[in-house]
Amino acid sequence: MNDVALGEIAQALGGELIGSPGLRIDRLGPLEGATPSTLSFLANPRYASQLAQTAAGCVIVAPAFKEAATQRGAAIVTDDPYLYFARLTQWWAQRVRPAPEPGVHPSAVVAASARLGQGVRIEALAVIEDEVEIGDGAVIGAHSVVGRGSRIGAGTRLAPRVTVMHGCTIGQRCIIHSGAVIGADGFGFAPEAGRWVKIEQLGGVRIGDDVEVGANTCIDRGALEDTVIADGVKLDNLIQIAHNVQVGEHTAMAGCVGVAGSTRIGAHCTIAGGVGIAGHLTLADNVHVTGMSLVSRSLLKPGVYSGAFPIDDNKEWEKNAATVRQLHALRERLRALEKKLK
Amino acid sequence: MNDVALGEIAQALGGELIGSPGLRIDRLGPLEGATPSTLSFLANPRYASQLAQTAAGCVIVAPAFKEAATQRGAAIVTDDPYLYFARLTQWWAQRVRPAPEPGVHPSAVVAASARLGQGVRIEALAVIEDEVEIGDGAVIGAHSVVGRGSRIGAGTRLAPRVTVMHGCTIGQRCIIHSGAVIGADGFGFAPEAGRWVKIEQLGGVRIGDDVEVGANTCIDRGALEDTVIADGVKLDNLIQIAHNVQVGEHTAMAGCVGVAGSTRIGAHCTIAGGVGIAGHLTLADNVHVTGMSLVSRSLLKPGVYSGAFPIDDNKEWEKNAATVRQLHALRERLRALEKKLK
Amino acid sequence: MNDVALGEIAQALGGELIGSPGLRIDRLGPLEGATPSTLSFLANPRYASQLAQTAAGCVIVAPAFKEAATQRGAAIVTDDPYLYFARLTQWWAQRVRPAPEPGVHPSAVVAASARLGQGVRIEALAVIEDEVEIGDGAVIGAHSVVGRGSRIGAGTRLAPRVTVMHGCTIGQRCIIHSGAVIGADGFGFAPEAGRWVKIEQLGGVRIGDDVEVGANTCIDRGALEDTVIADGVKLDNLIQIAHNVQVGEHTAMAGCVGVAGSTRIGAHCTIAGGVGIAGHLTLADNVHVTGMSLVSRSLLKPGVYSGAFPIDDNKEWEKNAATVRQLHALRERLRALEKKLK
Repeated sequence: MNDVALGEIAQALGGELIGSPGLRIDRLGPLEGATPSTLSFLANPRYASQLAQTAAGCVIVAPAFKEAATQRGAAIVTDDPYLYFARLTQWWAQRVRPAPEPGVHPSAVVAASARLGQGVRIEALAVIEDEVEIGDGAVIGAHSVVGRGSRIGAGTRLAPRVTVMHGCTIGQRCIIHSGAVIGADGFGFAPEAGRWVKIEQLGGVRIGDDVEVGANTCIDRGALEDTVIADGVKLDNLIQIAHNVQVGEHTAMAGCVGVAGSTRIGAHCTIAGGVGIAGHLTLADNVHVTGMSLVSRSLLKPGVYSGAFPIDDNKEWEKNAATVRQLHALRERLRALEKKLK
Repeated sequence: MNDVALGEIAQALGGELIGSPGLRIDRLGPLEGATPSTLSFLANPRYASQLAQTAAGCVIVAPAFKEAATQRGAAIVTDDPYLYFARLTQWWAQRVRPAPEPGVHPSAVVAASARLGQGVRIEALAVIEDEVEIGDGAVIGAHSVVGRGSRIGAGTRLAPRVTVMHGCTIGQRCIIHSGAVIGADGFGFAPEAGRWVKIEQLGGVRIGDDVEVGANTCIDRGALEDTVIADGVKLDNLIQIAHNVQVGEHTAMAGCVGVAGSTRIGAHCTIAGGVGIAGHLTLADNVHVTGMSLVSRSLLKPGVYSGAFPIDDNKEWEKNAATVRQLHALRERLRALEKKLK
Repeated sequence: MNDVALGEIAQALGGELIGSPGLRIDRLGPLEGATPSTLSFLANPRYASQLAQTAAGCVIVAPAFKEAATQRGAAIVTDDPYLYFARLTQWWAQRVRPAPEPGVHPSAVVAASARLGQGVRIEALAVIEDEVEIGDGAVIGAHSVVGRGSRIGAGTRLAPRVTVMHGCTIGQRCIIHSGAVIGADGFGFAPEAGRWVKIEQLGGVRIGDDVEVGANTCIDRGALEDTVIADGVKLDNLIQIAHNVQVGEHTAMAGCVGVAGSTRIGAHCTIAGGVGIAGHLTLADNVHVTGMSLVSRSLLKPGVYSGAFPIDDNKEWEKNAATVRQLHALRERLRALEKKLK
């Protein structure tokens, strides 16, 4: 049986339950498409109009929507429905997903000098090199590779097909998604007569606790010192973090962001998808950059920054883009007119 | 012998063959650099001038170029030379590439509860977890991982080093290229006092039939419901498809595109390289977006849309870009002049 | 003991050593944070002010800084400190990193028809398919896959989890980082009544000598002929090189660049992070493109090119971006005023 009584949820997660604690819930779902056994939530007041129509058995709402929600059925009232919903997904996931059993799969290749904590799980065909340390309860996914001397903190999970190169450190309770590469060489070369001479990357990568790294995201090792990702940072998929970058606590970056070498990003920043950040810059705490902007200079004040060309019908865009290329000249012509008319 | 008679090709693929059916062809190639044993094609009239110079033994042409082509040698005349050429490459590939032999490589790790169809091929060191279903004739490449409960349709090929996480569905005759990650967690967090609380991603990924997914492309699993890729969709390399995105039938996206969460893209769209599409938007059927545009609002009418800054000499760009930052002020100055002159 | 006498370094790498050859060095590091046993360098005159403050035991400097450097301690004087430093990192890496031992790990799956040179190292769980050739001293990382008939040159290193598909060639002394995919299918389809018909990609990938390919970077195989990366090219992480692209000698590309099909890029170019280059274009030698520009036309003259929207406070950006969409109309209004005033 995969369903659960509403009362059990409220008991585990709190909130004011209005309605029958015996109501059976078999699914979490959005208001739209909900069934009488669906537990749903209203986090964004923009969707309040869906409240009247939804068939959801119970809706998690803020106090302001208590009346509207209970007129139509059961409700859980809580100050922050989105946060409640987040915790609910965690509780639900633990209920429906089998906990991974500890143990080393016989096909894994684990160096004799590796030190594995209590309750560690090493999945099929994983490779653990010499002098690696893996903390209690950590999971190393199938086909993942942990290079010589690296350390994986307690409770951290590497998905299948993750690479952690040698000499890197990952904190506790991190999640590293499939295809991520931690500790590949930074991109460093000295020019010599039209050729590039490699600068060996002698630093490592240091990742704090509670960090999430998305699928196919890359975090390069430092040239001399470490690349550093602080506690609580969340990185989405296909992000490039170059060598010696520092990302501050609880900063979040959406997919396809690129950060060039030695840039320091503050704490509590949000970097939207496709943003590029040039090298050797400083971004203050609480800087927020909107999608696909190029950060070409340091941003030393908290705030929201943008720099994308506005989308338009192709024909309109063509005319305006062509004019952009004459913009400075237009300004000069405007100045000339202003002079004439003074 | 790797060559083939021209007549055999025309018999297999149709078209009007003008010239000797006995001519031996050992290579498909562009007009430029062709040899007397090369079969070439003219798809774009822009390259018609190459027809006179080419040494190709035979050229596939549209009826309009029949005369020009046959003046110089053999030709296959067909209404759509590019389509003919596409089918020819398929026919040729089957001829020159050994068909992969079915069977499970002894080094693969296949769960006892997995169900494999007829003629399935599981390559070296692949991992097939519990309750996986693999359809007839499917190929699972070396080092690929198929997570618990996922289903791979008949005739689908996973290249080496592909990840399909648990609970995902891939249709028939799909091709998933190396490094692709299907079903990693969507990027969902609720803020709580400056920290991020993970929203477990309880949905999956559903991919239709005849879909191609490029190398290192990521398609995240949904938060509550599934991320959905419809039949016939073609995704190039290094694309990010976020959770709960829906991509309509036969839509194609070039490399490095990013699509943020919950956006719905229609059928028969083309999204050029490097485009970013914000979250919670709707794109109608037959929308075409040109390279590196940011789609920041819904596009509800079919058409071509653009939004990239025009490239220029760096010096010109610097002057114009600086002026862009004063653009609104310039407009006000222009207005003032207009008022003055009224 | 991990430290080394300064004199030993100068003897190996040259330069004019001023100070005690017996000084023990245990670390290479930046001027900031250096200790008396740190060997540091001053490459950019911008950081000259750090020279007086640094605690570094020795600093590598250009002749112009000889006096300033020696007033505070030991120095190595050389014409190009950055190049000296690059060579020093190579020398240092050889000293501190154990040379990988040759041999085939018992868990690797190596086809009987593969030909391995002298001193080759095949790491755990690597897969080497039929007819592969691997040159002397090459290293194939754990979990890497080398497809049928591909050739890996002498001294080349594949990191863990690299894919080289069938029929590709990689030159000598290359480094291919983790997650890179060489030779996946190019993105080629012919439209037919609203569907896409696959064009089989019958070409391969040819990579020259001394090439570096970043983590999770993709280089697609050609449609009919090969995709070609010339000698000395350096590609950073998460780059997309489409089918039939040609990249000239010693060109370098930073992270997240995308190059569309059949484009030819000259030698000695630098392409900054996030740049997109459209298909079927030609870029001359010595073309330099700044970050996140879209190269939408051929660039036939050497020079620096740019095309990014300038970043600004979100509010300012909103006003200016809105005005960009009226820019052509503004130009017409300006023209009208000019006419009026003539």
